[in-house]
Amino acid sequence: MSERGAIVLLSGGLDSTTVLAIARSQGFECHTLAVSYGQRHAVELQAAARISQQLGAAEHRQMNVDLAAIGGSALTDSRIAVPQAATTGIPITYVPARNTLFLSLALGWAEVLGAPHIFIGVNAVDYSGYPDCRPQFITAFESLARLATRAGVEGGNLRIHAPLMAMSKAEIIRAGQALGVDYGQTVSCYQATASGAACGVCDSCRLRREGFLAAGVADPTRYT
Amino acid sequence: MSERGAIVLLSGGLDSTTVLAIARSQGFECHTLAVSYGQRHAVELQAAARISQQLGAAEHRQMNVDLAAIGGSALTDSRIAVPQAATTGIPITYVPARNTLFLSLALGWAEVLGAPHIFIGVNAVDYSGYPDCRPQFITAFESLARLATRAGVEGGNLRIHAPLMAMSKAEIIRAGQALGVDYGQTVSCYQATASGAACGVCDSCRLRREGFLAAGVADPTRYT
Repeated sequence: MSERGAIVLLSGGLDSTTVLAIARSQGFECHTLAVSYGQRHAVELQAAARISQQLGAAEHRQMNVDLAAIGGSALTDSRIAVPQAATTGIPITYVPARNTLFLSLALGWAEVLGAPHIFIGVNAVDYSGYPDCRPQFITAFESLARLATRAGVEGGNLRIHAPLMAMSKAEIIRAGQALGVDYGQTVSCYQATASGAACGVCDSCRLRREGFLAAGVADPTRYT
Repeated sequence: MSERGAIVLLSGGLDSTTVLAIARSQGFECHTLAVSYGQRHAVELQAAARISQQLGAAEHRQMNVDLAAIGGSALTDSRIAVPQAATTGIPITYVPARNTLFLSLALGWAEVLGAPHIFIGVNAVDYSGYPDCRPQFITAFESLARLATRAGVEGGNLRIHAPLMAMSKAEIIRAGQALGVDYGQTVSCYQATASGAACGVCDSCRLRREGFLAAGVADPTRYT
């Protein structure tokens, strides 16, 4: 594995797709990882596999974790409804410890490949109020990763990259557009239909729609 | 959930069984979590469910993660042989980022339940050379957990307990015996048979056997 080897967490949504485009533009050899964790639809996982290939990743893998077994989120527990409007505080769509888990899985694969970089599309600006999307969380995980791993013990310099951290949704969209990302391929909706059409009313749809408006970019999303 | 609510990571082996006995003796309300991660045999998962009930846990759950998808360890990759003798350095039975992943899953469930405690059976004395069994790793994860979670953001005091950290295998066995643990129910072997019989030659068997010898306790393990 070269020093440019990277694991890129790729959900098939707008943010992680932009992260992959950024990592590729910076010359990283990208191994994309999608995590199936009991989210309500599989259409974003299919989008992730397609986008990985289109953006020139070296390989794509999907890992399955049944977070639905512990419930607690509207995204994994079918008994909890996805809210139709903006909320304050930490919303019910928050999946407990999701980014900690995703980064752990990426870290495991990074160790196996000997890849010193991990990319994740967390964002502290339009972050929906999730605690594990803040810069101090990423810094803490990087410290943990160096203690937790063979690479860290042997003096390797594992890095967690969160290139979207300080960007607004509009800035993310403009950055992706400049790199040629086709956002029509991405799926952000919390309750997309099997064909990938978005509800237009959930938090994720709302942030995305406002992002295209603020960026002055035509919204390619198919809404139901 | 009471302030004594705890997630206990329970593999069905000697160490985590002792941890459960200790947590119960300290009055914690224990929710045990076994993780099926593509390890070579399911007999330890069956042991975990049985032991959880015997030791009076409130409930037991199993989560499935296919770490075999990323390979890299003799414990999850059937193409890598389990070594038959002690090795130096980090051994091939090391599963990349395993404890980071296990703690992430426990953290997710802890959040859902509102349980402020997580117990894990890592040990830095007879630790087989795994980087994620050291005290600084546990401390780093505790810091991460407080940043990563709703409970942490809202001022909750999440704690990671590693009560075996400074104990020798003999001390662990004596502690468990004093609490009435039946070690004949536990499975430690990396390549146990379907009936739970141990190989007697892998690293884990060797440490366990030496532990019983040093503790002056009759070894109840069934060997092949």
